[in-house]
Amino acid sequence: MLGEIIAIGNELTSGRINNTTSGFAAHHLFEAGFDIYAMHTIGDTPTLIGEALKRALGRVDFVLVTGGLGPTDDDLTTEAVSEALNRPTMPNLEILSLIRQHLDANGNQPSTSLEKLAWLPEGAETLSPKTKMAGYQLVHGGKPIFFLPGIPHQMRTLLIEQVLPRLSTWYKGYQLTSTQRVYKIFGKHEHEINREIKKLALSEEVEIGYYPVFPDVHLSMTIRGKDENTTDLLARKSCRLIRDKLGLSIYGQDRETMESVVGALLLRENKFLSVAESCTGGLISHLMTSVAGSSAYYLGGVTSYANSMKTTYLGVNDSLLEKYGAVSREVAIAMAQGMRERSGADISISVTGIAGPGGGSDDKPVGTVFIGLAEANGTKALHFLFSGNRHEIQQLTAQTALDIIRRHLLMDS
Amino acid sequence: MLGEIIAIGNELTSGRINNTTSGFAAHHLFEAGFDIYAMHTIGDTPTLIGEALKRALGRVDFVLVTGGLGPTDDDLTTEAVSEALNRPTMPNLEILSLIRQHLDANGNQPSTSLEKLAWLPEGAETLSPKTKMAGYQLVHGGKPIFFLPGIPHQMRTLLIEQVLPRLSTWYKGYQLTSTQRVYKIFGKHEHEINREIKKLALSEEVEIGYYPVFPDVHLSMTIRGKDENTTDLLARKSCRLIRDKLGLSIYGQDRETMESVVGALLLRENKFLSVAESCTGGLISHLMTSVAGSSAYYLGGVTSYANSMKTTYLGVNDSLLEKYGAVSREVAIAMAQGMRERSGADISISVTGIAGPGGGSDDKPVGTVFIGLAEANGTKALHFLFSGNRHEIQQLTAQTALDIIRRHLLMDS
Repeated sequence: MLGEIIAIGNELTSGRINNTTSGFAAHHLFEAGFDIYAMHTIGDTPTLIGEALKRALGRVDFVLVTGGLGPTDDDLTTEAVSEALNRPTMPNLEILSLIRQHLDANGNQPSTSLEKLAWLPEGAETLSPKTKMAGYQLVHGGKPIFFLPGIPHQMRTLLIEQVLPRLSTWYKGYQLTSTQRVYKIFGKHEHEINREIKKLALSEEVEIGYYPVFPDVHLSMTIRGKDENTTDLLARKSCRLIRDKLGLSIYGQDRETMESVVGALLLRENKFLSVAESCTGGLISHLMTSVAGSSAYYLGGVTSYANSMKTTYLGVNDSLLEKYGAVSREVAIAMAQGMRERSGADISISVTGIAGPGGGSDDKPVGTVFIGLAEANGTKALHFLFSGNRHEIQQLTAQTALDIIRRHLLMDS
Repeated sequence: MLGEIIAIGNELTSGRINNTTSGFAAHHLFEAGFDIYAMHTIGDTPTLIGEALKRALGRVDFVLVTGGLGPTDDDLTTEAVSEALNRPTMPNLEILSLIRQHLDANGNQPSTSLEKLAWLPEGAETLSPKTKMAGYQLVHGGKPIFFLPGIPHQMRTLLIEQVLPRLSTWYKGYQLTSTQRVYKIFGKHEHEINREIKKLALSEEVEIGYYPVFPDVHLSMTIRGKDENTTDLLARKSCRLIRDKLGLSIYGQDRETMESVVGALLLRENKFLSVAESCTGGLISHLMTSVAGSSAYYLGGVTSYANSMKTTYLGVNDSLLEKYGAVSREVAIAMAQGMRERSGADISISVTGIAGPGGGSDDKPVGTVFIGLAEANGTKALHFLFSGNRHEIQQLTAQTALDIIRRHLLMDS
């Protein structure tokens, strides 16, 4: 079953806003066994919208349209669809009454701008009016078309809760079985991984893709077929071969992130972490706490951006800072030790470096980073020279620090 | 002058990777006076690639193709182009010699996988071989086609340094003059802004767009025309009206971010900031230090995720934590004061709250947040109830905290 995705909005074709919703939809449709023939992004221009929709209806089995359903003057999707498919708009009474309730509750005058949301093309079935999210379904020429708002979190909710179940019911039995696994790899180049995987001589039915997703490389393995047992067996065998070949370089798979993997290891070992950051400025701490439940293993940290913070909060000696400079192995070690002692953590990590663009020297160029790790048996520090812009150096440093914790916990256990 | 953008990769149509490069290209092409007719995303399938390219050549003035130029087996763009445009591939000697030098330098054997990068369609002109980035230009039927790698930072570099100057030279004089301004607004809903802007009755030539970009709303004003003086004058007048109407709700414009605006205000006032974070877990600190040069006004902070961190590092009294709980006005005030006193900052901000999904209660549901601000004249704390998932509540809290600093600095000056 093939589908097309059409994203609408001048904010997208002018590049003002990056389209994140089409990729999200493609991902979930693919996982549900549907293939995407193409994704298009076009402006809020009724003729273009109509053309794209009619072309898609002529060649695929379903269409997903996002954007242009809002209350403002530049939202033109419904008008365009009405015109292109020759379905006059008419007011949906349920939506109209919800809008009036909302306006009453807020003591507002009736607003023609909001009421615009209630006018839908003939035959439209609303998706979830009670949630106050725009979105409807049309069936045209026997093919379902879904219209979703362009606002990412609304679009995501409606796609998962409404579109996927409806589509699966509609095309029951036509979907291919699909097994996909994504391995996340840090610290190896795309073509090195390609070379190693080639040696495995995997079956031709196993489709392998390599995707640099800074700062990682993702390796995807996809097997599709009619028979679930066959694809499952082949998938299990291929996964084992890939895992054996790449070993510790694979830090996680599918939805796992470096920070979720580190969190799970800390939890398993019943250890608490704290973090002393300089050039990463809080990024490591932010990553650790982006995982729900992180308070079970993460205490917190200090962002010692200024040298005074390193002495006051981490107990780094002024003389060390003077003798070796803030970006040095000695200061990284003192930061990690100071952090561990005062916070009472089992493991503390520290980073100090030069993220740039300024602050580099011949001796310590931009990208110079020291990462320290303190634990019960002692403290060590590693020296790195990363390349990239400020943002990239910060990301590389944070990911490397987390990877050091991961490898430490794996070796230790 | 109209263009189309074609992004290639199974990782994109399967939604494994989100396409960020097309939006980036659209943005810069639009700013340079080119319009994008449509953007397409298709898989690594030679027939689809050929079709999309030929259709685009039939209706627009230039085409930008990204992705599928790498050394791995699944990179098929060049083969597809060679076939579709009937231009056999041949080795580019400059690239071949660079690859061999690279392999020699690393003591590696010749690699057919890397040498694949040197084979280009007949007539291809390389864009920037010395940078070791794939990318070339073809002129077909009098129209330029640019092929760039899909790796975001390479694509961005080549677009800015190679494609834009080449395209501007090629179509010199055909571009429309375009003035665009984007206002960034925090704390107001899209349709409220729409209602206020409508009252201004701006000229019809002024195109206004409203885009919720969580947690902000962006308002874009675009004026295009043949005569630069006329559009400039109209733009200046319209900008003044919009700014007067929306006042302090506009926190910045164009490339400015909340954190760059707060940074510039701190620098102007010659004040230093430090931050005590709980539920945002380092996000505010990360945002502040994502701006180059932030060490001129940002000292650092403490992420006191565990209660023990609040007492040890921020001097928050145990009795306060027991009596009011960690998420309370009293603790927010104590955190901000403790942070300011020990760090020696002029201004300190604190946040404590419940980002969820767990940890909420009837009394303090998920989304409850207290933000404290301490400065020379005293300390205050504000109470918020945000809605959304964990990630959204963290983002809303961080942006609100930064906005509180911004408004404080503006009122104070």
